Amino acid sequence: MEERTEINDLGEFGLIDRLTRNFEIQNAGTVLGVGDDGAVIDHFGKQTVVSTDMLVEGIHFDLMYTPLKHLGYKSVIVNLSDIYAMNAVPTQITMSIAFSNRFSLEALDEFYEGVYAACERYNVDLIGGDTTSSQKGFIISVTAIGEVTPGQFVKRSTAQKGDLLCVSGDLGAAYLGLTLLEREKKIFLENPKIQPDLENQTYIIGRQLKPEARKDIIEFLAEKEIIPTSMMDVSDGLSSEILHICKQSEVGCVLYEDKLPVHDEARQMAMQFGLDPTACALSGGEDYELLFTMKQEDYDKIVLNEEIAVIGYITGPEEGAHIITRGGNRHEITAQGWNAFK
Amino acid sequence: MEERTEINDLGEFGLIDRLTRNFEIQNAGTVLGVGDDGAVIDHFGKQTVVSTDMLVEGIHFDLMYTPLKHLGYKSVIVNLSDIYAMNAVPTQITMSIAFSNRFSLEALDEFYEGVYAACERYNVDLIGGDTTSSQKGFIISVTAIGEVTPGQFVKRSTAQKGDLLCVSGDLGAAYLGLTLLEREKKIFLENPKIQPDLENQTYIIGRQLKPEARKDIIEFLAEKEIIPTSMMDVSDGLSSEILHICKQSEVGCVLYEDKLPVHDEARQMAMQFGLDPTACALSGGEDYELLFTMKQEDYDKIVLNEEIAVIGYITGPEEGAHIITRGGNRHEITAQGWNAFK
Repeated sequence: MEERTEINDLGEFGLIDRLTRNFEIQNAGTVLGVGDDGAVIDHFGKQTVVSTDMLVEGIHFDLMYTPLKHLGYKSVIVNLSDIYAMNAVPTQITMSIAFSNRFSLEALDEFYEGVYAACERYNVDLIGGDTTSSQKGFIISVTAIGEVTPGQFVKRSTAQKGDLLCVSGDLGAAYLGLTLLEREKKIFLENPKIQPDLENQTYIIGRQLKPEARKDIIEFLAEKEIIPTSMMDVSDGLSSEILHICKQSEVGCVLYEDKLPVHDEARQMAMQFGLDPTACALSGGEDYELLFTMKQEDYDKIVLNEEIAVIGYITGPEEGAHIITRGGNRHEITAQGWNAFK
Repeated sequence: MEERTEINDLGEFGLIDRLTRNFEIQNAGTVLGVGDDGAVIDHFGKQTVVSTDMLVEGIHFDLMYTPLKHLGYKSVIVNLSDIYAMNAVPTQITMSIAFSNRFSLEALDEFYEGVYAACERYNVDLIGGDTTSSQKGFIISVTAIGEVTPGQFVKRSTAQKGDLLCVSGDLGAAYLGLTLLEREKKIFLENPKIQPDLENQTYIIGRQLKPEARKDIIEFLAEKEIIPTSMMDVSDGLSSEILHICKQSEVGCVLYEDKLPVHDEARQMAMQFGLDPTACALSGGEDYELLFTMKQEDYDKIVLNEEIAVIGYITGPEEGAHIITRGGNRHEITAQGWNAFK
């Protein structure tokens, strides 16, 4: 039988000591980490970028098919993605969790293993947090802190007419992974003897359960001396994010269906579910890719990077936001992205 | 009848726009606030202090007697208190909330009125956050950011033998306010016709529902050029916090019962409940006062400040942590502070 230690045997401070015992400070700027009223950071003349996200069991994740280690990893990643989307480098996080008494110490250890793995991979320090009880379920709140050379952060509101519209990686796979997991859950609940077989869908399942943040893209852009004219990460769905950029930048755009990057496995799974792969790419959400605009003259610098697709261009605001389909039809882009209040 | 607007009529972005519409940036260092993937802060060569706290309905607060506006105010204050406890000045916060569908837009507006009032009073900018659904109850996660002159932050682990042990304000009143509110709730639940009469207990009720952070003490210490040798805020209870300082500083201490500052109204209410006022002061919690140690030679600088009490002194670690009672007895100090997992 698995070991189960009750949290109240440790108390809050024992718990914090236990959960943070493996963390070693990696950033020179982290002057003081976990264990005091606050942490202290020195940014050595850089600007600080701050982002925060809350993840709630039953709303953002389902523990029936989400391993706690993956959940810990993902809850860090979604926040780091926001920092990269500002053209900044994440350096520290705080991690607060609330959980009901159905969670054992071993479960929390597993969650923190994932947190630890993400921090290590992205060279980020865990500098604080809070652990407390909840009446129901598991609630996670992460604040990520990053640094950027003064003035080099990139907003959503600064796209210009004529800019190229680019996206990293591929789109829609995380949504299809979720759809598959939900289907297998339903089958399992109806007949627990049927074990899910997900072996042929490792890509889309991985995109859902263990996403990565696009550190590599930010490093590539820096190396090529490209500062995007606007940028954000794709968390709610491409169409929703494009509309944010258009609204906040007061521009329009044209998007080409045949330029949207969709992974083969995602395309096949969409077909199998009777879904349109383009609709999945536009509205799926949780891709954690970077959507950005850049000047046309930078095109030559990115053309050989297979991880970046030019999917359209920015127009004047009077032209609205449109997608040109494979058949040559023109449709207005509408936000069908993910909404926690639906 | 009161107006009730459902949250899903607005969607997440409409909601964020609505809740943050009254916020104006107050700090020159806040380069970019709400509305992008992240906020941007310039600390102009200062060090950044970060602290975070989570508040959960049913664990940390009871909405039966906590007005939402007060809750919004208090959820900011408890975080600012941590920043002051580092000898830093809070400059920004992020505010994330998760709430079930029993909360209307008007309820959230009321909560944010309190957040807004606290930010205004303490000259702090709200720079980001997250709003999402919960399966049950109201969950609040705040991260506070502050700044400090490099090297002038004050930790818990640096108290020295011979230092004076000081506390601001008075202790135990917030706990007695809570005890009173819990009693009145019980009476009301047994007989809803009996309306609570709290008019003669405005001080202790105020200490519970609308605490303040000790900005004034930090300003006073700076003006007098006192850098405490160690400091923390009193949130879980004085005895618990003293033991943190002793453990982390590897020292002992002597505390005098007759030096503990207790407000008259708190003392009277303790008597009425058959509680020992000293026990309330030691273990009550939620006082949000500052507990600090300082060198003996600074005594003359604070002696005239009625908001600071010298309650004891630091000894060597071999002497442990003790309290000398009014009767001259010596007792070991034990942590009876508040624990979310009890």
